[in-house]
Amino acid sequence: MDTLAPGLTRAAVWSADGVTVREMPLPQPDRGQTLVRVDLATVCGSDLHTVLGNRPAACPSVLGHEAVGHIVATGADAPLAVGTRVVWSVTAACGQCPRCLVGFTAKCARVRKVGHESFDGDWPLSGGYARHILLPAGVTLVEVPDRVPDAVAAPAACATATVMAALEAAGPLTGRRVLVLGAGMLGLTASAACAERGAIVSVADPDPVRRSLATAFGGTPDSPDIGGLVDVALDFSGATAALTGALSRLDLGGTLVLAGSVSPGPTVAVNPEAIVRGWLTLTGVHNYEPRHLREAVEFLSGTVTRYPWESVVAAPVALDAAHEVLTPTPPGVLRASIAP
Amino acid sequence: MDTLAPGLTRAAVWSADGVTVREMPLPQPDRGQTLVRVDLATVCGSDLHTVLGNRPAACPSVLGHEAVGHIVATGADAPLAVGTRVVWSVTAACGQCPRCLVGFTAKCARVRKVGHESFDGDWPLSGGYARHILLPAGVTLVEVPDRVPDAVAAPAACATATVMAALEAAGPLTGRRVLVLGAGMLGLTASAACAERGAIVSVADPDPVRRSLATAFGGTPDSPDIGGLVDVALDFSGATAALTGALSRLDLGGTLVLAGSVSPGPTVAVNPEAIVRGWLTLTGVHNYEPRHLREAVEFLSGTVTRYPWESVVAAPVALDAAHEVLTPTPPGVLRASIAP
Repeated sequence: MDTLAPGLTRAAVWSADGVTVREMPLPQPDRGQTLVRVDLATVCGSDLHTVLGNRPAACPSVLGHEAVGHIVATGADAPLAVGTRVVWSVTAACGQCPRCLVGFTAKCARVRKVGHESFDGDWPLSGGYARHILLPAGVTLVEVPDRVPDAVAAPAACATATVMAALEAAGPLTGRRVLVLGAGMLGLTASAACAERGAIVSVADPDPVRRSLATAFGGTPDSPDIGGLVDVALDFSGATAALTGALSRLDLGGTLVLAGSVSPGPTVAVNPEAIVRGWLTLTGVHNYEPRHLREAVEFLSGTVTRYPWESVVAAPVALDAAHEVLTPTPPGVLRASIAP
Repeated sequence: MDTLAPGLTRAAVWSADGVTVREMPLPQPDRGQTLVRVDLATVCGSDLHTVLGNRPAACPSVLGHEAVGHIVATGADAPLAVGTRVVWSVTAACGQCPRCLVGFTAKCARVRKVGHESFDGDWPLSGGYARHILLPAGVTLVEVPDRVPDAVAAPAACATATVMAALEAAGPLTGRRVLVLGAGMLGLTASAACAERGAIVSVADPDPVRRSLATAFGGTPDSPDIGGLVDVALDFSGATAALTGALSRLDLGGTLVLAGSVSPGPTVAVNPEAIVRGWLTLTGVHNYEPRHLREAVEFLSGTVTRYPWESVVAAPVALDAAHEVLTPTPPGVLRASIAP
């Protein structure tokens, strides 16, 4: 462990020059704010897209929006007490704009995002790849039970909560045939969550190593040559061909939930007569609401020994090595991690 | 009124030679069956498509699946008593196949359809363009209050019930901005039904006469040049351009319900990223379930004086003139009708 003078903290700052660690004064939380000591951050694939220049992002910034830590200081009216072990939402919502009032707080007109704000602005410590993160009012904090290891808890705030939103959009799952598209962290989490709800799950992925992980997460690897009808398809791949294939496999009354298409791509040719005659539904989810983060923690907590969550997260590197792990993981590893 | 010997009935039989009226013995209802004297049948647009050869259909057959009448004879275990004034569902379901058991009785594996069966088969009197219709077990019959005129009641079994299914798929409508595509019988019925539920309704149709009818049915004619965002779009047009336009007008969390795409047509190019980021839903409905027919009668009964239902149905012709009204109606008339 490095040494750090009192009153200082360290953050991995992503800029045009790459990712470099900087020391800076430790902020004191204002009213409604919470200061968290980050214990572990996992590296979501969307941060890789950011670093690779595949999507627009504030730069310089402290990335990282999947993390777990302990509260070390709070402003007045902060939601939880010092010492609490927590995960926190990606979005900070105002709670008062029309979108917040209709229940889409993640689409708040004044939304700010953990791990997405400029390091040069008024919220420099917005990301998880740092010793400390400052969380404004409007971020949802959820306490994490001790029995959930850091590597299992960290993905809650992005991968797991998004899966909970996708499952809500899919409707009842007991006894349903579910096809999961994409065997990354979200797909395997969805496989386990659908299995827990009594679904019969198959998992498709072009990579045979990833696909084979399905077995340990409540599903079976999907066989394209069998490719039977399903009641629900959940897409975390964002691949147009996968979406077209899934639409053609929906049985009467079936639902395709899109969650993976988060960057520009080709359109999907949808046959409206097939939608009508099949009573089919195509629905999208993006980010998630506070209830989904609470469900995510509950789900991970309840299944911590049932699925090999830790086995798909690489051993953490130190903050100084953050730049080394902002790179695609090998097929059997779903998340790199950083212990800052 | 023509004369007809006791024990006989008359039906307008559509065949390769056109529509001709035939006399035939009046059937006696078997167990579960109901014999109805048809008072009025309205002419649904899909029958026009059938006669024009735009869709496959049993031929010869007695067409007509929107009608109202009185029960004149029943077999054992028939659901309602002689004398009851009724409308009846399009589909006859077995109630025991997997599709019936999951609640899609309209997609019953052994489904038979009112107004769609061969005149040369075991159910010759399947349609409403006849003095009598024989309804098998598995057809849903719903009693019609006296205050609902024949011309208002007849469309219940197709237009109105399908609209009820579409509204169920659309979700809550109070305070929602609704765009209705197509100002035919279904579109105007949907306009009124959405207005009754507290929605703000605009109605789009390429025909200015039809579009202008919206005003009397709880909506306003949609102005393509204003074309604001909506929460719900209900399609009864089946027009690809309309669907594409409607998708682009859905606000965050919006839903497009497809009900009009019942024949082969071009695909719709759907942008999956827009579906995801907008939390959009695209969903289809086809035919309807028994609950929707009950809702349809309740809705018409409750709004019989509130909307000019009768004004959009042409005065009935006699059965002998059935062939004359199996033709498109002028813009301000939504249904021809036959009093057999």
